[in-house]
Amino acid sequence: MMSGLHTAYPFPFKKRDDVDRSAAQAMRNECRNGGFSGSTSGRAPGFVQANLVILPKEFALEFATFCLRNSRACPLLDVTEVGSPEPSMVAPGADLRTDLPKYRIWINGKLEAEVTDITDVWRNDFVGFVLGCSFSFEAALAREGLEPRNVTMKSNVSMYRTTHPNIKSGPFEGNLVVSMRPYPPSSLPDVIRITSSFPGAHGGPIYKGKTDATPHCSFLGIGNLGLPDFGDPVPIGEGEIPVFWACGVTPQVAIETAAPAPPIAITHAPGHMFVTDLVDDEMRVGQPPG
Amino acid sequence: MMSGLHTAYPFPFKKRDDVDRSAAQAMRNECRNGGFSGSTSGRAPGFVQANLVILPKEFALEFATFCLRNSRACPLLDVTEVGSPEPSMVAPGADLRTDLPKYRIWINGKLEAEVTDITDVWRNDFVGFVLGCSFSFEAALAREGLEPRNVTMKSNVSMYRTTHPNIKSGPFEGNLVVSMRPYPPSSLPDVIRITSSFPGAHGGPIYKGKTDATPHCSFLGIGNLGLPDFGDPVPIGEGEIPVFWACGVTPQVAIETAAPAPPIAITHAPGHMFVTDLVDDEMRVGQPPG
Repeated sequence: MMSGLHTAYPFPFKKRDDVDRSAAQAMRNECRNGGFSGSTSGRAPGFVQANLVILPKEFALEFATFCLRNSRACPLLDVTEVGSPEPSMVAPGADLRTDLPKYRIWINGKLEAEVTDITDVWRNDFVGFVLGCSFSFEAALAREGLEPRNVTMKSNVSMYRTTHPNIKSGPFEGNLVVSMRPYPPSSLPDVIRITSSFPGAHGGPIYKGKTDATPHCSFLGIGNLGLPDFGDPVPIGEGEIPVFWACGVTPQVAIETAAPAPPIAITHAPGHMFVTDLVDDEMRVGQPPG
Repeated sequence: MMSGLHTAYPFPFKKRDDVDRSAAQAMRNECRNGGFSGSTSGRAPGFVQANLVILPKEFALEFATFCLRNSRACPLLDVTEVGSPEPSMVAPGADLRTDLPKYRIWINGKLEAEVTDITDVWRNDFVGFVLGCSFSFEAALAREGLEPRNVTMKSNVSMYRTTHPNIKSGPFEGNLVVSMRPYPPSSLPDVIRITSSFPGAHGGPIYKGKTDATPHCSFLGIGNLGLPDFGDPVPIGEGEIPVFWACGVTPQVAIETAAPAPPIAITHAPGHMFVTDLVDDEMRVGQPPG
């Protein structure tokens, strides 16, 4: 805390000096060299993986404000300089045009293409946004004996469109998207404590559902928890309740539904995240100052 | 934590339902009606007072990013919609054009005028930024028997220009400005704990100096602690050390030194802050989820 200046990002992260970050850099280099275009799940373990959104400057202020207003769903980890593909806070030297395995290109809010490199479409008015992702707290949950079922099943987490509008910013609004992980009520205090200490990875749960023979969640407007809008179905066991977190698909929905829609936007392809130089523990807050 | 949705601003604040916010509203109304143009120090006690920066949209993205990169000095509490004077997150219904007692108008980075109302100069491309201020943690320190000396003396805190450049964003850089409060080393753990729980009010200290017969701080580039660049001199007692925090004058220096300078910028006049609807405790983090 006191040894030297720490003026940047007290939350959501603080970089340590004693971390070997070469595994993250190696992963990004593999993407850059065209040697890897798969899912990043389980890759470069321990390093923070992140959602990516790229927008023209004309839309960037209002998207940044959208993220600040809806920071549970859109925890900002880094914003690039206008025209620069380098996320200098979370991965100095990285290049957002090449260092992800797969990208999605959105034209006027419609998905247009999936590509493995965006160097050709990059413009000097582009701004890159790096947003936290729940992988960071899933690892922490597993370390404390609370591995989420989707991790145990090696499937994607269940994600649902809700009926709750986000807080609007300029053209961006859309409804909140949530992820769901089932837990017994007795585990909830620990689940809340652990995930709340990762505000840069969506933080604590936003809602807990009820034990229910025909699982649904009327508060969030989810008719059937067995039919997720994104990801895979994850069964809710006897005596478990569905626990919901704000989800990083939310900004993608905000871009799809933006009015006016941005003429172009680029995101990571689902599961094909940006691997940052940060380790999960550096995103953890509320620890004793050290 | 779990009763309903909390998707906005998990940090730096969370609004409670049971707070009577009429004293803050009354203070703002007095400013709006021209009935008050003095310092807000000690007014509407318990409510979060904030720094204000208003910039044209053309400069707003890069200023927002400047704040995110230098969040110790520039803790963002709210950003308005383009053209809107309403800081809807921290004070719904308030009007940034009238609700502060005094403003400064900066033309091309030079201080041009002090006025009590900016309705006449408001433009529909203006964006308002509301930034936290250390008043919030000073009250918390006092409640735990650690009242800062500047509060005891009823003077302004000592503030200094340092030689440490901020992290640049577009045209904004400048050097960090710090405030100083003297404490005996034995009080430091409590001082760190208390102030660190207010990241929205600059958070914990960024540096501690040495006990020194001729007080200076070479690390920060401060030649004589008895001659602050802003505010009043505050004596450092026998056996005390100077403790430094990032200071809300930093963004003002970044605007003065911006290259290119914004053609127009508006800030609060020193000590004439914006009184928000938030109470100090709502900015506190790291409490048990409730």
